Amino acid sequence: MTTQDARTPENAAQNTADGGAQREIGWHKGYLSGTRPDIRVPVRRVHLTNGRDVTLYDTSGPYTDPNIDTDVRRGLPPLRENWIVARGDTEEYPGREVRPEDDGIRHTSPRGGLRNLDAVFPGRPRLPRRGRDGTTSVTQLAYARRGEITPEMEFVAIREGCAPEFVRDEIAAGRAVLPANVNHPESEPMIIGKNFLVKVNANIGNSAVTSSIEEEVEKMTWATRWGADTVMDLSTGRNIHTTREWVLRNSPVPIGTVPLYQALEKVDGRAEELSWEVYKDTVIEQCEQGVDYMTVHAGVLLRYVPLTARRKTGIVSRGGSIMAAWCLAHHKENFLYTHFEELCEILRVYDVTFSLGDGLRPGSIADANDEAQFAELRTLGELNRIAKSHDVQTMIEGPGHVPMHKIKENVDLQQEICDEAPFYTLGPLTTDIAPAYDHITSGIGAAMIAWWGTAMLCYVTPKEHLGLPDRDDVKTGVITYKIAAHAADLAKGHPRAQEWDDALSDARFEFRWEDQFNLALDPDTARAYHDETLPAEPAKTAHFCSMCGPKFCSMKISRDIRREHGGDLAVEAVGAGDAAVDPGVDPEEGMRRKSEEFAAAGHRVYLPVVD
Amino acid sequence: MTTQDARTPENAAQNTADGGAQREIGWHKGYLSGTRPDIRVPVRRVHLTNGRDVTLYDTSGPYTDPNIDTDVRRGLPPLRENWIVARGDTEEYPGREVRPEDDGIRHTSPRGGLRNLDAVFPGRPRLPRRGRDGTTSVTQLAYARRGEITPEMEFVAIREGCAPEFVRDEIAAGRAVLPANVNHPESEPMIIGKNFLVKVNANIGNSAVTSSIEEEVEKMTWATRWGADTVMDLSTGRNIHTTREWVLRNSPVPIGTVPLYQALEKVDGRAEELSWEVYKDTVIEQCEQGVDYMTVHAGVLLRYVPLTARRKTGIVSRGGSIMAAWCLAHHKENFLYTHFEELCEILRVYDVTFSLGDGLRPGSIADANDEAQFAELRTLGELNRIAKSHDVQTMIEGPGHVPMHKIKENVDLQQEICDEAPFYTLGPLTTDIAPAYDHITSGIGAAMIAWWGTAMLCYVTPKEHLGLPDRDDVKTGVITYKIAAHAADLAKGHPRAQEWDDALSDARFEFRWEDQFNLALDPDTARAYHDETLPAEPAKTAHFCSMCGPKFCSMKISRDIRREHGGDLAVEAVGAGDAAVDPGVDPEEGMRRKSEEFAAAGHRVYLPVVD
Repeated sequence: MTTQDARTPENAAQNTADGGAQREIGWHKGYLSGTRPDIRVPVRRVHLTNGRDVTLYDTSGPYTDPNIDTDVRRGLPPLRENWIVARGDTEEYPGREVRPEDDGIRHTSPRGGLRNLDAVFPGRPRLPRRGRDGTTSVTQLAYARRGEITPEMEFVAIREGCAPEFVRDEIAAGRAVLPANVNHPESEPMIIGKNFLVKVNANIGNSAVTSSIEEEVEKMTWATRWGADTVMDLSTGRNIHTTREWVLRNSPVPIGTVPLYQALEKVDGRAEELSWEVYKDTVIEQCEQGVDYMTVHAGVLLRYVPLTARRKTGIVSRGGSIMAAWCLAHHKENFLYTHFEELCEILRVYDVTFSLGDGLRPGSIADANDEAQFAELRTLGELNRIAKSHDVQTMIEGPGHVPMHKIKENVDLQQEICDEAPFYTLGPLTTDIAPAYDHITSGIGAAMIAWWGTAMLCYVTPKEHLGLPDRDDVKTGVITYKIAAHAADLAKGHPRAQEWDDALSDARFEFRWEDQFNLALDPDTARAYHDETLPAEPAKTAHFCSMCGPKFCSMKISRDIRREHGGDLAVEAVGAGDAAVDPGVDPEEGMRRKSEEFAAAGHRVYLPVVD
Repeated sequence: MTTQDARTPENAAQNTADGGAQREIGWHKGYLSGTRPDIRVPVRRVHLTNGRDVTLYDTSGPYTDPNIDTDVRRGLPPLRENWIVARGDTEEYPGREVRPEDDGIRHTSPRGGLRNLDAVFPGRPRLPRRGRDGTTSVTQLAYARRGEITPEMEFVAIREGCAPEFVRDEIAAGRAVLPANVNHPESEPMIIGKNFLVKVNANIGNSAVTSSIEEEVEKMTWATRWGADTVMDLSTGRNIHTTREWVLRNSPVPIGTVPLYQALEKVDGRAEELSWEVYKDTVIEQCEQGVDYMTVHAGVLLRYVPLTARRKTGIVSRGGSIMAAWCLAHHKENFLYTHFEELCEILRVYDVTFSLGDGLRPGSIADANDEAQFAELRTLGELNRIAKSHDVQTMIEGPGHVPMHKIKENVDLQQEICDEAPFYTLGPLTTDIAPAYDHITSGIGAAMIAWWGTAMLCYVTPKEHLGLPDRDDVKTGVITYKIAAHAADLAKGHPRAQEWDDALSDARFEFRWEDQFNLALDPDTARAYHDETLPAEPAKTAHFCSMCGPKFCSMKISRDIRREHGGDLAVEAVGAGDAAVDPGVDPEEGMRRKSEEFAAAGHRVYLPVVD
C-alpha cells in the first residue's frame, strides 16, 4: 500500500508562518491507498519532533482534510457510490413519498401533503436505491458468504491493518458487521467485531424538549472529530425526518436509529396505536434515507413483561417500554417479533444492519443479569439466526447497569447464545450513585466488557439520567469511551494498540512536550492543562514539569542517571540481564556481588537513547 | 447503638425559611454513638421526600457540622486525645527542635536558628508524645495482638458496620491498618483493609513552582468534603514543615507523607548528599508533628536499578529515582533498607504506619509487571515481615501504569508475597494515550484492582502528567475514585454498598428528583446538569426528564404500565414466577399460554409501590 498525504510535512512546515498553523504542524490528514485509486483510507499522521511519524485511525471524515471543501448544505461526496453501482445488483426507484407526518407535522401542508425532497435537504436530489427487483440481497454478508471481497472490505482491511480475506471471513461467519446502507454512500467503511479494534458509538438527537437540526449535525461532526466510529440519531421530536436527512448526507460514519421512536411520533405518542404497517412504513422511509443500522426491539415478548414486575427500575429502554405497553394493551405478541422475517426481507435489499435491541436491559444495579434480561437475550439469539438466514448483518445490544462482578457473564452468554455476533453494549454503568459522572461509572464497565469481547461501545455522557448532552458532553463522552475502547484493545493484545502508548510514553520520558500533546487523545485539553501551570513557551521543552519542579522530577533524575552513568555498553554487559533476584541468596551477599559487578563494569546503567 | 444528630429533621425543616438552606434540607450531619459518650461516629444522613433516611459514610469532619465552630488557625478538637492519654503508655517530651531548614530556609534567622512553634502554627502549643521511655510500642497492631479493642477500633467498627472484634482481628492479622499517630489526635479513626470498604487517598502538596499553605489546607478540607479517606501531603518546596503542621492540625483524616521529599530539600536537592542521619531526623520531625503514615522507598535495592535500564520510562517514582540516584552515587545499598529495623523502632513509638513505596513501579504500559517491579515487590514482602515483627502497621504501595489484562497479577502477587497486607495502588492507568483524562484511564484500573483486593486507591486527577491539581481537579479526582471504590464495594458484595444504589434507583424510578440529587455522590453537579435543560422548579417533580420529554419517557411508560395494569396481587399470582422461558416450548404456544394466564389474572403486571 502506498500513501497519499493531504498535506506533506514540507507543506506543513511552510505553514508555520501562518499564526494558528504553528500548533497544527504536529499532525495532518493522510491517506492509505488500496489496490485501486478510489480506495483511499483516511489516517491521522502525527509528526514527532524527533522526525518520526505515528499513524492513527481517523474517523473525522473529509472535514479535517484542508484539500476538501465541505459544505453541510451540499453534503459529503458519495465515496462509495461507484462501488455500489458497479456491483450492478441495485436499482434506483421512485421510493416512498415523503410526508409532513414524517417530520411530525400533522396539518395538511398547502401543497397537499407532499413535500419536495429539496425542502428536506438542499443538496443533490437523489432517488433511493435498493437490491434489484426489490428482492436481491445486497448485504456485505451476502457478498462475504459468496467469497467476494468488496471495496468496502478492502477499505476496512487497510484501516484495521489486516488481510482483506480476514475481514471477509469474519463477516461471513457473522462475527463482524460492516454497516453500509447503499443509500449512505458518503460513509467511510468500518467494521464492528471482536477481532477488530473496539468501536465507539455516540448518540445524538433532538427531543420534544430541546435542540435543533443544526445542533445535531454539529454534534455528529464534533463526535466523529473526537473519534466516534458510528453515530446514532435518536431524535424524537419535530423535524425528525429532516434532521436525519441532514445528518446522513453529512456523516462520514455509519448512522444508526431506533425506527420505533419515529413510528411512535406518527401515532402521536400513543403506544397502543402502533402497528406493523406504521412501523414498516417508517423502516422503509429510513432505509431509503440511508440509515446504516437499526435498533429493533423484537425480543421484548409479551410473556417476558411480567418478569420485570419486581424490578427496582422496571423497563428503562424506551423502545422496550413502548413495545411492552403495546403488547399489554393488545394482549398480543410483539409485532416486531411476529413480522421479523418480513423485516429481514426489507433490510437486506438496502444492506441495513440489525442492532437487536435489549428492551429489557437492567436500569439499575439491583436488576442486573435477571431473568427478564436473559430471557430476552435467548430470543435475540433466535432472531440472530433468522436474520442471518436472510443475509442480514446483525449485532446484539447489551446493558446497561451491571456491577463489575456480573459483567463477564453478560458477554460470555451473549457470545454463546448469539453465535458470536458482535455485542454492542451501553456502558455498562458499574454503580447507580453518581449521576453527572455516568460517563465514568460506565467507562469502567465499558473497558471491561470490551476486553472480554464486546465489539462496540455505546457512549454515555455526563448528562445521562439528567439532560440532553451538549457539545462539551458529547466530547467528554466520546473521549471517555475512546479510552475504554483503547484500554480494551491493549488488553486484547491488538497488534497496533500498544504502538500508540509507546510513542506517547517515549515522548513523555524524553520531555518532548509537543509530541505528548499531539499524540494525546485530546491534544487541546492536554496542552491547556499544561499551560495553566507553566504557560511560558520554554516550559514546552523544559526537562521538568510543574508537579515536581526542576529539582525533584523523577523523569529528570532517571534521565540524569542515564546520562551520568550511561555509556555504549549493552545492558547485558553490566549484569542487568542476570540481576534477577534469587530469593535463595542472602540479600546482603547478593547486594555486594551485584554492586561489585556494577562497579567493575564502569558504573554504566542506562543504555543511551538510540534514535 | 443510638444516634445523635447535629441537626434534627425538625430543625432542618425550620431552616427552610433561610434562603440557601432550602437546598440543604436534603441531608445533614449525624452521629452514631458507641459504648461510651466520647465515641461519636459521623455520618451523612440523607432525608428522602418519602420520609425515609439513608445513612452514608462521612469523611468531611467537623466542617460539615453546623454545631461545631471550626477555625483553621485553632485547628480541630483533639478527638482522640483522652483515649491516647488514658492508655497510659505514652509520654510527652520536649521533642526535636524545629529549625528554619525544616521549612527550606537556609539563612540563620535573627533568633539564632530556633523558631517558635507559635510561628509554625498559632493554635494550642503542644509537646509531642511518644511511647513511654521512647521504646514502648503504642501501635494499634500491638494492642490488637494483645486482644485489646481500642476506642479507635470500636469507632471504626461502627463506621464500617461490623463487630469491633472483627476490626481487632483484621488488624492483628496484618490484613488491615488503622493509621493513627498519637500526635494526630484530631483524626477520626478509619481502617484500610480488603475486608472493609475500599478507601480513597487524595494527594495535595505545594511544589517549588507553585501553591501556598492556605491553598493546601483548603484542598485538604475540600478533598475530605467529597469523600477522601486519607490525604497525602506531598509538598516539596518552601514552608514544607509549616504547611504540614497546618494540614495536620486541621485534618479529620489520616495524613500521609513521603519523608524523603523533605530530606532531599534539606540537602538542597542533591540526592548523593542524603544520609540516614538526615532522613532519620526528618522522620522524627514528621512523627512528632503527627503524620499517620509514611511512604518509605526501602525496596529500591542497588541491584534492581539496572533492571530498569531497558524500560520505556525508567524510574518514574520520585522517591524511587532519588534512592536509585543515591545508590548509584555511593555504590552502596539503599540506606532505607539497611536501616529499616531502626526505622521500625522509631515508627512504633508514635504508631506511624508504613506505606512501603513501590519506587520501581511502571510508568508506562510497556513497563508493566516487569522484572524490576516484581523484584522490588518481593523485597517489600520481606520488609513487611520485619515491620510486623516490630509491631508496626504496614501497607504496600502498588502501580502505576498497567494494561487491564495485567492488573490481577499485581494484586494476587502482592497478597501472596506480603501476607495479605493492605495493598494501596495508584490507579493503575490502563493506557498512556490520554493525558488530561488520567483520572479516567486510572479510574478504570482502580475499580478493577479494588474489586480484586486492593484496600486503598490513591487518586489521579485530570492534571496528572501535566500540572498541579487545583480545587476542581481535586474534586474530580476524588469523585472519580469514590466511584471506583464504590463499584468495587458492590462487586465484592459489601453488605452496605448496594443499599445506596438501591435508594438512588428507587428515587429515579419514582421521579423523586430531589432525592436523586441528594443521594448522588455530587449533588451539586447533578442538580446543575438537570437545571441546564429543565431549569423550572416544577421539572424537579415532573414525571419525565429532558432526554425523552413527556411523551417518550420509558420510566413514565413503565410506571404507566404499573398504574394501568397494576393491582394488589402478588407477582406469583399472575404467573411471573413461572414465566421463565422454556427453550423446549414452541415460542408461539408459550406466548399464547402466558398471554391467556396474564389475561385471566386481570391484566395485573406490576406490584404497586409499597411504602
